[in-house]
Amino acid sequence: MNKIDELSAKSIRFLAAEAVEKAKSGHPGLAIDAAPMAYTLWKQMKHNPKDPEWQGRDRFVLSAGHASVLEYSLLHLFGYGLTIEDLKNFRQWGSLTPGHPEYRHTKGVETTSGPLGQGIAIAVGMAMAESRLAAHFNRDGYKVVDNYTYALCGDGCLQEGVASEAASMAGTMGLGKLILIYDRNHITIEGRIESTFGENVKARFEAYGWQVQEVASGEDMDAIQAALDNAKADTEHPSLIIVNTEIGYGTAKQGKASAHGEPLGEEALKSMREFYQWDYAPFEVPGEVYAHFDELGRGYAKAEEEYNRMFEGYKAAYPELYAEWVRWHDSKLPEELLNDPRLTAAEKPMATRATSGEILNLAAEYMPNLFGGSADLAPSNKSELKGRAYYSKEERDGANVHFGIREFAMAAVCNGIMLYGGLRAYCATFMVFSDYLKPAMRMAALMKLPVLYILTHDSIGVGEDGPTHQPIEHLASIRAIPDTNLFRPADKKETAAAYIAALSGTMPTALALTRQNLPQLEETDVKKAMLGGYILRGSEKPDVILMASGSEVELAMKAADELEAKGKKVRVVSMPCTDIFDRQSAEYKESVLPGSVRARVAIEAGCAMSWYKYIGLDGETVTVDHFGASAPAGILFKEFGFTVENVVAAAERAMSK
Amino acid sequence: MNKIDELSAKSIRFLAAEAVEKAKSGHPGLAIDAAPMAYTLWKQMKHNPKDPEWQGRDRFVLSAGHASVLEYSLLHLFGYGLTIEDLKNFRQWGSLTPGHPEYRHTKGVETTSGPLGQGIAIAVGMAMAESRLAAHFNRDGYKVVDNYTYALCGDGCLQEGVASEAASMAGTMGLGKLILIYDRNHITIEGRIESTFGENVKARFEAYGWQVQEVASGEDMDAIQAALDNAKADTEHPSLIIVNTEIGYGTAKQGKASAHGEPLGEEALKSMREFYQWDYAPFEVPGEVYAHFDELGRGYAKAEEEYNRMFEGYKAAYPELYAEWVRWHDSKLPEELLNDPRLTAAEKPMATRATSGEILNLAAEYMPNLFGGSADLAPSNKSELKGRAYYSKEERDGANVHFGIREFAMAAVCNGIMLYGGLRAYCATFMVFSDYLKPAMRMAALMKLPVLYILTHDSIGVGEDGPTHQPIEHLASIRAIPDTNLFRPADKKETAAAYIAALSGTMPTALALTRQNLPQLEETDVKKAMLGGYILRGSEKPDVILMASGSEVELAMKAADELEAKGKKVRVVSMPCTDIFDRQSAEYKESVLPGSVRARVAIEAGCAMSWYKYIGLDGETVTVDHFGASAPAGILFKEFGFTVENVVAAAERAMSK
Repeated sequence: MNKIDELSAKSIRFLAAEAVEKAKSGHPGLAIDAAPMAYTLWKQMKHNPKDPEWQGRDRFVLSAGHASVLEYSLLHLFGYGLTIEDLKNFRQWGSLTPGHPEYRHTKGVETTSGPLGQGIAIAVGMAMAESRLAAHFNRDGYKVVDNYTYALCGDGCLQEGVASEAASMAGTMGLGKLILIYDRNHITIEGRIESTFGENVKARFEAYGWQVQEVASGEDMDAIQAALDNAKADTEHPSLIIVNTEIGYGTAKQGKASAHGEPLGEEALKSMREFYQWDYAPFEVPGEVYAHFDELGRGYAKAEEEYNRMFEGYKAAYPELYAEWVRWHDSKLPEELLNDPRLTAAEKPMATRATSGEILNLAAEYMPNLFGGSADLAPSNKSELKGRAYYSKEERDGANVHFGIREFAMAAVCNGIMLYGGLRAYCATFMVFSDYLKPAMRMAALMKLPVLYILTHDSIGVGEDGPTHQPIEHLASIRAIPDTNLFRPADKKETAAAYIAALSGTMPTALALTRQNLPQLEETDVKKAMLGGYILRGSEKPDVILMASGSEVELAMKAADELEAKGKKVRVVSMPCTDIFDRQSAEYKESVLPGSVRARVAIEAGCAMSWYKYIGLDGETVTVDHFGASAPAGILFKEFGFTVENVVAAAERAMSK
Repeated sequence: MNKIDELSAKSIRFLAAEAVEKAKSGHPGLAIDAAPMAYTLWKQMKHNPKDPEWQGRDRFVLSAGHASVLEYSLLHLFGYGLTIEDLKNFRQWGSLTPGHPEYRHTKGVETTSGPLGQGIAIAVGMAMAESRLAAHFNRDGYKVVDNYTYALCGDGCLQEGVASEAASMAGTMGLGKLILIYDRNHITIEGRIESTFGENVKARFEAYGWQVQEVASGEDMDAIQAALDNAKADTEHPSLIIVNTEIGYGTAKQGKASAHGEPLGEEALKSMREFYQWDYAPFEVPGEVYAHFDELGRGYAKAEEEYNRMFEGYKAAYPELYAEWVRWHDSKLPEELLNDPRLTAAEKPMATRATSGEILNLAAEYMPNLFGGSADLAPSNKSELKGRAYYSKEERDGANVHFGIREFAMAAVCNGIMLYGGLRAYCATFMVFSDYLKPAMRMAALMKLPVLYILTHDSIGVGEDGPTHQPIEHLASIRAIPDTNLFRPADKKETAAAYIAALSGTMPTALALTRQNLPQLEETDVKKAMLGGYILRGSEKPDVILMASGSEVELAMKAADELEAKGKKVRVVSMPCTDIFDRQSAEYKESVLPGSVRARVAIEAGCAMSWYKYIGLDGETVTVDHFGASAPAGILFKEFGFTVENVVAAAERAMSK
């Protein structure tokens, strides 16, 4: 590397340190020590800052999201449009430079990051997507899909279990175009890393089947470049490059935990200027550095031009493949699917996990870009795409994925797949294990990624497996996440509604599905179900409203029969998705749940918390507000009060208030 | 091993297969193939089935909890009191043999298990507890604490991230008396393990710093015994013993995924009888086998007698240490702590994370058996026990733990510590990362383990770190878990109430604590706060009730001032713990929230969901029902509506209904 490279890396170091200083908040330590490796990495990347969404670009994930200021400094210098003013507004209200990188918020940021470990799994998902799309679309002379996925992480990411899960997956799947750079700066918030992380990271990743290289000093950009070259040359194995650094290199806080998560302070900043012989004003970048990045930019633009020319040739040579390409990259739901009578057809009682399996497979007929699977529960989750290959080292165009028993990485990988584009990600597990993957579901919600979660065995209906496997609080927990839809369908029609909402939506959707059979209800309706909640039956001026979701809708209907036989006017409301119902107009909501009717009963085999919004202080609940038990499901429903008798009694209590 | 050992292992195999067959539900595959290793392991264990809680016993964790029937068969044969009738009632309502092992439910079961991976972390916690207590209490000639911790797992556990985290911790901490037996039967639900798990497990665990041995065949009990001997001899490193098996060995389903999670079926059971030349009736165990276990039992009882004799000598030789032992094993809160004025003393505004830090340190003065730490956020969580050592390979009696950036393993390890006995476990992280550890918190709730979770940075008050770090749904999510208390104190007095409840309670307690300073309120009260919710101020017959928790109580008070200035009668209710408030008498609840007052406003910097129970259909909320943003905290509170003006407006809307 030459002088201009040194000067560029220095510029990043100072922009980062000064932005944190001005914000009086942020993480300068890693940004300073990792500047040379980040600069070296970005310099050689295939990307075009003038067109941040160019499909052919390499992907970059800052898994150590707390070092956001490093990414912002890179985005500024490489010409992504982020200005010095933006850097001066680091971590301020409304700025383009929030505390952690945010997808859809700042141009060039490929993913939201910050919750540690997840970035590595996201990068794994991106690399999987790339390899599948490459296998599907590339033809001789036309590598329309061909990029590397890079991630930069610190010690923290590598201690998190989700990173271990993802790394094991990446090794098994031989993701040779995934390159992870590990800034080993030896420091975490509580001090020297050795006190908590005595393991041999190199040996661990070799055990996963990765190529592992070590660079002695993060200051050695030539060595970093050489390691990148080696990593790129090995397309059989994912690569880890361990780069040894000292946190806050060249500052008075070098090697200290205090360099990690707070501004350096005037004094340390002063010593940093001396160490690096840096005489520029705060936020000043030498003109020759800008000129250098301008020149780099012309090279990047040229690369895209070449790609675009090649792509034009591809269009001409493979018009059908190109048409498919367009369909795969279109987020609209195919009309044909909506019009297919199999979408709702069902004659006999079925578990909603089974209706889900049917619809998922039907959708795959029209959407061959579905890509997903289960955390080793496909036969139970009914989540397999029948007759389609499994994605593997040998079969890159497989639509099914064996995620292994790794729920968290599975969901984070799905985020990476959706971020890459061109594919539709879904994943499946038992609903109780939504706990394991929830941190990734939250990230999907933050990024508004329409990942589909197939969560089966959604209540005490699990039966014999017992309380460790029976969701209680999970329906409420998922409903509580902003920008996330939870559907709990009562039969196949409502399952279809859930799929339509999920596959045409712009946010993550979780499906809560039964293990046990449910009847196909005459009264359910696809279009109405898509409103989230609707009147299933009942009079204009009811004495009581029974509301329920999923497996308890049938019980509400039976209790309504009984109450009507007793001369009561009963309305039954099916609530497949409270999140969507809440977004309806006040008028619609009033039409379903008139304010004047206070006798209301909520029935759901889960905790009551999310229902008080609809039943108020005078309502009654038939819910499960304690842990479950191990026994056949029918016995549990009875023992825990899910009987017509009990619902009728609750309705009578509500009416008597 | 000799004939009786073979016959014993066979008996376990058949009891397991037949119990699953009778229940028409369960997991026979691992139970059958792992019977010889489980028998060998238990045979040599230090335990006394006649006294399952003998402190000196080795601990055993069935991390592969789905193989519960294996543990039940062992408990029956070893004489823990589980009967053949119990085995016949496997997975039935009210039986002692539920689908997955349940702590406190079946004698001899050391921990609930089933959610994969967690058992390994629990075993790590047990081994940590053992080593600390041994260092603290043992004296020459008196090894009053001296046992091994064993865990048995399958492929599933080793794919889960939490197991990776725990294994890395165990290696760093050199937990030489932890022995993990891995039944590598090559099969998961979706098929051959190789398709998802290509890694070299042996090399991975060696990288963690473990001793790793491999046993070629699970049928070779001598080799298993030899491996156990080697593992026990190495007390510097945790040990992994990889035992190669074939799932459902000796049945028609051997080596097939179908052997995993469903009954064998009549035919396969028949072939199993032929393979093993087993002519006994279902659930019949040869008399010589029972006689053999009787004899083993006499040996176990003798071991405890010897221990007890030694312990009597210890009492006599070290009466003060013994008195300390008694205190450490007493779950009561020391009176002195309750009477210490420092428990509530506070003069200036403080963040509740800081009041928590003070009280935690005060508690440690009276409860030196506190044992815990943070997932690398101790300085932020204020969770360090000042002046006390950190637990490590070199310092076994450290009270502080560097858990590393491993939230899930941290919480699961705390479960293991509590299960071991003698210590009080706590752990800390940012509240938003309660998502990472939630599966372990749920296990604590299932087992009613009073683990303390110090969750700081509990709202948008996080400020600059932005939406990835700001809890929104988390307060509701934790409140939704059965048998768990969430406290969100408003000041030091309420923090004291939370600690008293947590440290004297019988269920897990999560503390939601602010990053930012809060005033010390004159009106708060320790005793009343322990009721979960109470009247902070206001008239007998209020026009409106303002209810709030934590950082929003101050705002409620200021809004009340304003409303009173406008001539309204206002009651302010502080709700530090809705879970405990819900358990108060109907009378008390009515006295705090009279049914006749429907004008109610809930104020909390989190999602509204958990408040509708108290505000009903006519109430108003000042809450955060969307993701946060990156900016200084003060700006966020203002932008998101946490102003006196806004609360007053909400109250006026509520009163006008």
